[in-house]
Amino acid sequence: MSDISAIEAAAARLKGHARVTPMLTSPFLDAVAGRRVLVKAECLQHTGAFKYRGARNALTALDPPGVVAFSSGNHAQAVALAARERGVPAVIVMPSDAPAIKIANTRALGAEVMLYDRAREDRDAIGARLACEKGYALIKPFDMAEVIAGQGTAGLEIAEQAAALGVTRADVLVPCGGGGLSAGIALALEARAPRLRVRPVEPEAFDDVTRALATGKVVPNQRLTGSICDAIVTPAPGALTWPVLRRLCGPGLVVEEGQVLRAMALALERLKIVLEPGGAVALAAALAGAGTGEAVVVVASGGNVDRAMMARALAE
Amino acid sequence: MSDISAIEAAAARLKGHARVTPMLTSPFLDAVAGRRVLVKAECLQHTGAFKYRGARNALTALDPPGVVAFSSGNHAQAVALAARERGVPAVIVMPSDAPAIKIANTRALGAEVMLYDRAREDRDAIGARLACEKGYALIKPFDMAEVIAGQGTAGLEIAEQAAALGVTRADVLVPCGGGGLSAGIALALEARAPRLRVRPVEPEAFDDVTRALATGKVVPNQRLTGSICDAIVTPAPGALTWPVLRRLCGPGLVVEEGQVLRAMALALERLKIVLEPGGAVALAAALAGAGTGEAVVVVASGGNVDRAMMARALAE
Repeated sequence: MSDISAIEAAAARLKGHARVTPMLTSPFLDAVAGRRVLVKAECLQHTGAFKYRGARNALTALDPPGVVAFSSGNHAQAVALAARERGVPAVIVMPSDAPAIKIANTRALGAEVMLYDRAREDRDAIGARLACEKGYALIKPFDMAEVIAGQGTAGLEIAEQAAALGVTRADVLVPCGGGGLSAGIALALEARAPRLRVRPVEPEAFDDVTRALATGKVVPNQRLTGSICDAIVTPAPGALTWPVLRRLCGPGLVVEEGQVLRAMALALERLKIVLEPGGAVALAAALAGAGTGEAVVVVASGGNVDRAMMARALAE
Repeated sequence: MSDISAIEAAAARLKGHARVTPMLTSPFLDAVAGRRVLVKAECLQHTGAFKYRGARNALTALDPPGVVAFSSGNHAQAVALAARERGVPAVIVMPSDAPAIKIANTRALGAEVMLYDRAREDRDAIGARLACEKGYALIKPFDMAEVIAGQGTAGLEIAEQAAALGVTRADVLVPCGGGGLSAGIALALEARAPRLRVRPVEPEAFDDVTRALATGKVVPNQRLTGSICDAIVTPAPGALTWPVLRRLCGPGLVVEEGQVLRAMALALERLKIVLEPGGAVALAAALAGAGTGEAVVVVASGGNVDRAMMARALAE
């Protein structure tokens, strides 16, 4: 069960391990957005994304002899680092056509990478078999209580940092894939800053959560490829995250790719931080005017982007 | 007089105004450098550089009716913002070859900008005349006790953050122009972490401090233009900074432009932060192997760089 006590327990486990990421601001971004913009820079978290919070909390809480995860991106690196820190082996199941740099990074963090053929093999079956054979714990990317609680520690920090900047009533825009970060933050804010309301942000054509929040029904995205925001493309919210999102979140927001690239460029120029497309959707929404009142809080959730994509954003 | 009590007074004035910038790390940079690299990300300070610390401290301590400053950019933006926050007018004297974005930003922060020719005119004389005519306080970029004390607050944070990461004995590499940041940090560390030793870092051909530390004699740089590291090109250390540097700093370090561009690219890729060339020289030195022992602390002093220079670094 994910609730504030689970998040507080996660915060205690993460203390001295996860970074307290800064809340950044720029008068130049305020002028673009038409209100104060507070940016929670989770791209500065270990391994470049908020994912380390959930991975480290799950590894510490479960204390397994080893872990298995499937991911070709941010969750993979987070689990690899957390496992290395805990001194247990990690096996990361990645598609054989994943970018070489992602495979190399995951290996460099000490994980064993097991490649599978995306066209012919079932990664869930591979993961389940590995976990069973070796007695390892499977660390899911979002639909797992310990992972949601870990991500929720970002919400505890947001409540405190926003209050220190005089902001206690605002929309909190959160990049949303499977909903682990949005649900965790929403639970933390419900307890600590109830007038800060989470609104999930998604890329155009991959807006399963926004549609579900509007209709009350989950209808999975029709496709799962073709977005520059690959890090937050998932079929649908999870069995654990969806009830939290439905109960606590305001209406979802949808942004276009051009807005995302401009947000990446402005983050480089004005905040001095690197965002990946999926990590920049909430900032993109804020810069397009989303939010109500005098201030808006934005989670900048990840910065793992290759040089070509950075150059593309700079050319916008 | 700059000493630890002046730095502590500055820290009290800056509390709630200057950001406590994070100390970042990456296992990938550790591997390049051959030791742990702790990066104090001052590019995340207000206006994108450490300069806000000294400017805000001087403005608060002196409480003048208006301010004049001369600067190639970062000090200008810092004084402009601090003056706006304090509600007093600012006139900034800038070289006509300063990056366009720095001039535009200074104006956008509400300051009046006056341009001069850096090769032929004496900015000190221009600044002194303006201050006299208007009855404003001249906020010098480095050779001023309140400014050195303000920059020294970064040293208080370094002492605390490095200790939290288990580092109490290491070289602290600091990008060095006139020596305000190096001197301030050295004074703070002398009192709070005496086994952390500042070593100034400069670009090739603009290594006045490194030469002075080696010989004991200050001989100004022969030229003042032609470096991508424009933010830290000054003729020589100041009357206030030089005695502190001579007494407290280890040998200086010199880096080449190619190393600087590579450090900028790795900062983007591995730390998710934007550095300008002058702000990246210390990281460049660390990545080239500078430092002794198990860890090295690096100050990443500024991130005000235009898109073309970011793209150039990414293409390295």
